[in-house]
Amino acid sequence: MRADNLTLLTDFYELTMMQGYFKNPTNQTVIFDVFYRENPDQGAYAITAGLEQIIEYIENLHFTSADIDYLRSLSIFEEDFLAYLRDFSFSGDIYAIPEGTVVFPREPLLKVIAPITEAQLIETAILNIINHQSLIATKAARVVHAAKGDGVMEFGLRRAQGPDAGIFGARAAIIGGCIGTSNVLAGQMFGVPVLGTHAHSWIMSFPDEYTAFKTYAQLYPDACLLLVDTYDTLKSGVPNAIRVFEEMREQGVKLTKYGIRLDSGDLAYLSKEAYKMLAAAGFDDAVISASSDLDEHLISSLKTQDAKINSWGVGTNLITSKDTPAFGGVYKLAAIKEENEDTFTPKIKLSENSIKITNPGDKTVYRIYNKSTGKIKADLITLADETFHDDDTMVIFDPVDIWKKTRVLGGTYTIKELLVPIFKNGQCVYHSPSVMELQEICRQHLNTLWDESKRLVNPQKVYVDLSQKLYDLKTQLLEEMGSETL
Amino acid sequence: MRADNLTLLTDFYELTMMQGYFKNPTNQTVIFDVFYRENPDQGAYAITAGLEQIIEYIENLHFTSADIDYLRSLSIFEEDFLAYLRDFSFSGDIYAIPEGTVVFPREPLLKVIAPITEAQLIETAILNIINHQSLIATKAARVVHAAKGDGVMEFGLRRAQGPDAGIFGARAAIIGGCIGTSNVLAGQMFGVPVLGTHAHSWIMSFPDEYTAFKTYAQLYPDACLLLVDTYDTLKSGVPNAIRVFEEMREQGVKLTKYGIRLDSGDLAYLSKEAYKMLAAAGFDDAVISASSDLDEHLISSLKTQDAKINSWGVGTNLITSKDTPAFGGVYKLAAIKEENEDTFTPKIKLSENSIKITNPGDKTVYRIYNKSTGKIKADLITLADETFHDDDTMVIFDPVDIWKKTRVLGGTYTIKELLVPIFKNGQCVYHSPSVMELQEICRQHLNTLWDESKRLVNPQKVYVDLSQKLYDLKTQLLEEMGSETL
Repeated sequence: MRADNLTLLTDFYELTMMQGYFKNPTNQTVIFDVFYRENPDQGAYAITAGLEQIIEYIENLHFTSADIDYLRSLSIFEEDFLAYLRDFSFSGDIYAIPEGTVVFPREPLLKVIAPITEAQLIETAILNIINHQSLIATKAARVVHAAKGDGVMEFGLRRAQGPDAGIFGARAAIIGGCIGTSNVLAGQMFGVPVLGTHAHSWIMSFPDEYTAFKTYAQLYPDACLLLVDTYDTLKSGVPNAIRVFEEMREQGVKLTKYGIRLDSGDLAYLSKEAYKMLAAAGFDDAVISASSDLDEHLISSLKTQDAKINSWGVGTNLITSKDTPAFGGVYKLAAIKEENEDTFTPKIKLSENSIKITNPGDKTVYRIYNKSTGKIKADLITLADETFHDDDTMVIFDPVDIWKKTRVLGGTYTIKELLVPIFKNGQCVYHSPSVMELQEICRQHLNTLWDESKRLVNPQKVYVDLSQKLYDLKTQLLEEMGSETL
Repeated sequence: MRADNLTLLTDFYELTMMQGYFKNPTNQTVIFDVFYRENPDQGAYAITAGLEQIIEYIENLHFTSADIDYLRSLSIFEEDFLAYLRDFSFSGDIYAIPEGTVVFPREPLLKVIAPITEAQLIETAILNIINHQSLIATKAARVVHAAKGDGVMEFGLRRAQGPDAGIFGARAAIIGGCIGTSNVLAGQMFGVPVLGTHAHSWIMSFPDEYTAFKTYAQLYPDACLLLVDTYDTLKSGVPNAIRVFEEMREQGVKLTKYGIRLDSGDLAYLSKEAYKMLAAAGFDDAVISASSDLDEHLISSLKTQDAKINSWGVGTNLITSKDTPAFGGVYKLAAIKEENEDTFTPKIKLSENSIKITNPGDKTVYRIYNKSTGKIKADLITLADETFHDDDTMVIFDPVDIWKKTRVLGGTYTIKELLVPIFKNGQCVYHSPSVMELQEICRQHLNTLWDESKRLVNPQKVYVDLSQKLYDLKTQLLEEMGSETL
């Protein structure tokens, strides 16, 4: 049983609150921001992903009769509210940073402006989707960075946290830079390359390893990657693979995409020895692919050891983002407009922990690039109605340690707004690029980061600052709130 | 776009191997075992889950025209093979340990006996489903154990790795002992309790906290759990909650399910202070619920500190099994029967690491209980055709350190086979219990474990041993293989 309608994919409290707002109608319009506070894996950046699925979710929002019947059965919702749900659709605006963009903590990745009942319902699914896909896209970008130009394949379906985690995890991994996935359904759904050859069971189902290799090579001469570690990698697997490659060469088969896959043992040692054996037989251009609990740190270590591996299959650690399995995106109230008002009243959420204090008001995000290098200088969270010109000198403020100010001289930078309109009055106004286009977009974004920010360990932070106006507003609200409650 | 047909939810190499077997027909029947090697979280046990979804997946297996067209577009599959896929259905046998069972490393959780093409196709989805749900059910059982009888609610949908991870993760969490979930769709799909009240945004959308609480209490007097940490827990939240409870009491409202929720700060201190304030006002039976990055260790620590919390909402760390986000279930070839043969030839996969050497042959698993206490003595992996009588004395063997033998005296134990038939000749012969029934089944299984094996840190291992016959077979194959390849 697969749920084809995700309207009920929400926390129960969203519905109890919705009924509360329905029964006590204030007709408030609200602004919620999605943002996150810490990069996964102690990195310096994240990659946005999941917007296409959020759009599909919003467009498909509707309560079926079965949904209404189910909610009625809970004996907590009243008939007038259920009738309202029966006609429910999303009527608000959504802005978002497009998929494949490099992003940083505390900046709004997505902004919802909608009647409070609607904005509340969609919180959970939006967070679920953006948190999952951004997490895996970020992990993939890290792994691909570690592979220094070698192809990285996503192989994790069997260890993913359910079917969707495999399907949309593969999508996100490709956005983050993987060249393909083992997941055939993801290939079909997103038009991305699917890859893979055979398992140990293939080898074991033949009387011997040589026969298994030979049979495979005859079937797939154009994509002949032989798994060499079923019995003994260097004494049996590699020699049998070479024997088969030699026979193919003798038969005049053009060896283009061929080689071996190592799936266990000391990959540094085995790859170097295997390379020597292959090269001695004239196969120095063979692919040497490795898999076996890889992640960005292990790949980086193997690179440092000069392992002769030029293709990487990454499973569990990528598809689950093992070191940081959750992306902590949150959905926070930023402003409210009462029915009889024309403007939004900014809202702020206090916390003892200053990093958890939210940024109030209707906001947007700009990215400031160094004009000569094209690299990111800083991101700037501003109020939505502020405008900027490349030739003005700006003063920008650290959102946590607000005494830290930076002057950005006019003429030294270019500036670009990151949030773009996705829905206007409930209508989608955005067209999602294909997944392969998103991969290229992501590659270009990663190029705007300094190498020091892409480093796996202790990377250089990128500044996300506040504009003068937002800084002033936040300071003012903090003072008002502080005196009210402490 | 949701995939309603999971037939292509498989690794690409399963299809290339299938075509290989189709093109070189040996008509082998094979036996694959699903097992895992290490318990999550360095625990002593795991909980099986996911079988109902595996059954649905197998029953629904079929390649649609769109699937065939997609595979054809990859230019690697030939028309005769695609025609075979068009008529594909599963014709084999599947045995499994029912959901909610306590299980241990290396024992077969599921066994497939089928033509090799069929057995190969279904590997990936079976592993995906069983790995995910067993992981979360196990984590839930640990968290529930730490809560020592308090209710634990699953609240993790927004941080789950995609929609399915939230949906089936909630299912697994309930099997493992959670009393409910925030996930409304999971509630609808599986008939499990849904829970939740309101968020910080509810409080912030009102002019003040008291009005927000009062409005909520009027709407939901029967389930009135007030979130008290939006402004200041002890100076504002708890006093306002008490004021509302007092007003309800004065109005003659029967306070049954009511109390507060703490979502930040020092939960030990805040809960004790809040309890004092509530008790002083005559509300010593109020629920004090806590959430905020909880896991089994934090709950256990709060219990040790005598925190006055009696209800727990667990999100991220449960729904992602944060410390161990993958359950390493594998699918290994155990035996092959050639077309012209009557019996299966056992297969073994060698490894330098003795723990990775597989157990050969057509096997089953028995559980040996202490006759007087009802607690588990050991599990016994045997060949499928062995039989046992409670009054026979047995000698059983450690599967890794095979010199370790144990004598189990006749009359001191009862014995029960764990693997039961699920499919016979492609037909399902098993009826899945409801999720709430599975929760009760799981609870009973957990009662057969000694407390020392449920301990969170350094738990006592439960023995999983081999029968004499399986031990002899494994030794014989190891000797044959060893001399052949080393």
